[in-house]
Amino acid sequence: MKGSPIILTTDFGLSDEYVGVLKGVILSINPHATIIDLSHGIPPQATGRAAEVLCKNYRYFPAGSIHVCVVDPGVGTERRIVVVRGCNQFFIGPDNGVFSRILETDQAAEVYELTNSDWFLEDISTTFHGRDIMAPAAARLSLGASINEVGPLISTDSCVTTTTTAPLVSETGIRGEISAIDRFGNLITNIEEGILIDFGLSPRFAIRIKSQLLQLHQGSYGHLPDNQPAAIINSSSMLEICVKNGNAAAILEVGIGERVVVKTK
Amino acid sequence: MKGSPIILTTDFGLSDEYVGVLKGVILSINPHATIIDLSHGIPPQATGRAAEVLCKNYRYFPAGSIHVCVVDPGVGTERRIVVVRGCNQFFIGPDNGVFSRILETDQAAEVYELTNSDWFLEDISTTFHGRDIMAPAAARLSLGASINEVGPLISTDSCVTTTTTAPLVSETGIRGEISAIDRFGNLITNIEEGILIDFGLSPRFAIRIKSQLLQLHQGSYGHLPDNQPAAIINSSSMLEICVKNGNAAAILEVGIGERVVVKTK
Amino acid sequence: MKGSPIILTTDFGLSDEYVGVLKGVILSINPHATIIDLSHGIPPQATGRAAEVLCKNYRYFPAGSIHVCVVDPGVGTERRIVVVRGCNQFFIGPDNGVFSRILETDQAAEVYELTNSDWFLEDISTTFHGRDIMAPAAARLSLGASINEVGPLISTDSCVTTTTTAPLVSETGIRGEISAIDRFGNLITNIEEGILIDFGLSPRFAIRIKSQLLQLHQGSYGHLPDNQPAAIINSSSMLEICVKNGNAAAILEVGIGERVVVKTK
Repeated sequence: MKGSPIILTTDFGLSDEYVGVLKGVILSINPHATIIDLSHGIPPQATGRAAEVLCKNYRYFPAGSIHVCVVDPGVGTERRIVVVRGCNQFFIGPDNGVFSRILETDQAAEVYELTNSDWFLEDISTTFHGRDIMAPAAARLSLGASINEVGPLISTDSCVTTTTTAPLVSETGIRGEISAIDRFGNLITNIEEGILIDFGLSPRFAIRIKSQLLQLHQGSYGHLPDNQPAAIINSSSMLEICVKNGNAAAILEVGIGERVVVKTK
Repeated sequence: MKGSPIILTTDFGLSDEYVGVLKGVILSINPHATIIDLSHGIPPQATGRAAEVLCKNYRYFPAGSIHVCVVDPGVGTERRIVVVRGCNQFFIGPDNGVFSRILETDQAAEVYELTNSDWFLEDISTTFHGRDIMAPAAARLSLGASINEVGPLISTDSCVTTTTTAPLVSETGIRGEISAIDRFGNLITNIEEGILIDFGLSPRFAIRIKSQLLQLHQGSYGHLPDNQPAAIINSSSMLEICVKNGNAAAILEVGIGERVVVKTK
Repeated sequence: MKGSPIILTTDFGLSDEYVGVLKGVILSINPHATIIDLSHGIPPQATGRAAEVLCKNYRYFPAGSIHVCVVDPGVGTERRIVVVRGCNQFFIGPDNGVFSRILETDQAAEVYELTNSDWFLEDISTTFHGRDIMAPAAARLSLGASINEVGPLISTDSCVTTTTTAPLVSETGIRGEISAIDRFGNLITNIEEGILIDFGLSPRFAIRIKSQLLQLHQGSYGHLPDNQPAAIINSSSMLEICVKNGNAAAILEVGIGERVVVKTK
């Protein structure tokens, strides 16, 4: 028995030593911990993106997994640190919206404020609570500590929510935007498949980005025409604009925030 | 007993969450799996490079290791997914050439088509079979499932081969190219030490790249002259052009595909 | 019992397969090893930076941890490979200064030359001793091999020291420089909090970088004024110049080596 795995999501990148230090702190408390990186590529301070990544992917981790999310621009201020028990997993991080999509998803989720200073490292910096407070708490939970030791149960309504831009839905269609660009240059929108289904998901939908009008394909990358942008539903059930064997972001010269309009009739 | 390690090689990069999700899927099936990253820096869709990296490095992993290679531009099309048992290890990935160097190396290797849908995730996307099909299969094999459960044995001759450019060999020498550039700016050619030995590997060989004529050194980086390009045999037994404490790619202004000629007399 | 964890610090980056190969070699010898990445983002050949990262962060790893540091521009030359037992941990790497801060920190540290060729891989390359010599030694130590099997005890005085630039201290202040820039664009100086305390650490200190005069703040990022550079003590107890929710390196157009002056009166 090695305990539940600890899953890390941060905006630290991998060129510095910050992620390694989180792991050292965890191993110092639970030498047998299993530690997995979900992503350290969240853009700096992008709490909305972190919320999205956690919400879209927690289901691929074992029940009982302990997530640590360090996207924490308010570190050292009066912002709270919380532990969410929801979606059959645990989520440790700042109360700044990174867990708001999880709280939306599981209405029965509970939130505890992490105040048990017996768990903290001895010296608490003002700028790295991931190391000094969150990683130690994850290690304790992975050793089987009870959620009741974390600190007081608090109201989920009191938690900060992210300001992710939701798409605007009108009678004739949907106006969304590019919310992420992956390594392949795929342009991931903030438009969920569910909304498209409400409109009767159809290959006749016209998707406009910049001056391009694209069709919605229902197959995979390999089935797309060569060298031209197309729209698909991606593996996270989001509308995505891509180019077969090419980089849509580079070809369309598009960045995060670019408007995407779906004309449904 | 934690089972055989699972080794990941992809073109996903590390800025997105795709690699983390593969690991979550594996841990959900085998909570005690040991998971190692070989490389996620394969250039997008570069099946030939993946084939090279696997072939050059599998020998450094334990017998029984289970490789998952997700360089899969044809995901969601009719391309097969295969499990190769060869070189005393297992290799799971698309049948698109990523394992062709392994099949060349071990003529007794066996290939199975991965068709056992009992192993797949419940919902299969059209764009992420690494997550939905390959990672689960790796987890099953690491738990001790038999290769016979994978699916039917297929002919190795039926497998797709990579289109890696082989060097051209003539009476007076070898014409190859730069096939990879590492973080240090070292220029790795597609010319193996073995070919040079066939020609009588000698410090009198003249190596030409762009307008530069270089000597073949038989020592290490530290023994090279300062600040000037030189050719050595690298730690993977390939001809490599480097600059001591410098970046050969930047100094020579060379990219992948640049021609390299070895005059052997 | 999985043995002591093995902690990797290199200048390999993560786009190549070199780090993965180190892990494969370790697992081939100790299949149950716990392997953690501290950092692979040390700039190429930057032994001084490696020394700093190890010294600042070893304390976050368990007693008995086995560090492998492969920042090794002299690989294949006559430079020694050493194992340091100090600070309650082990450090394996080239004798080129990467451990000199550890040796300063623990005056009772012992240094052994790694000469036990029974531990090495069978074929030793001239350019990748991390793989062929250091990783195997780490795996052996993690299995419980005695430090006495490493090779002869050598004098710590004989070890190479790094040439890290120390700040210049005068009666009226301190002249240091930027020694690292992290993913957030935070500018980390070579000036330790301890020196500032010797001068009576005060918010009246004036910190000059380029033409900017900054104040020393004693809070955290979140408490800083918006959009303007400020100086703080960071989580590693170093003077750091940062911009709240912004990138100080980009805003100030500053690189590594830029001068920083602290006027203390």
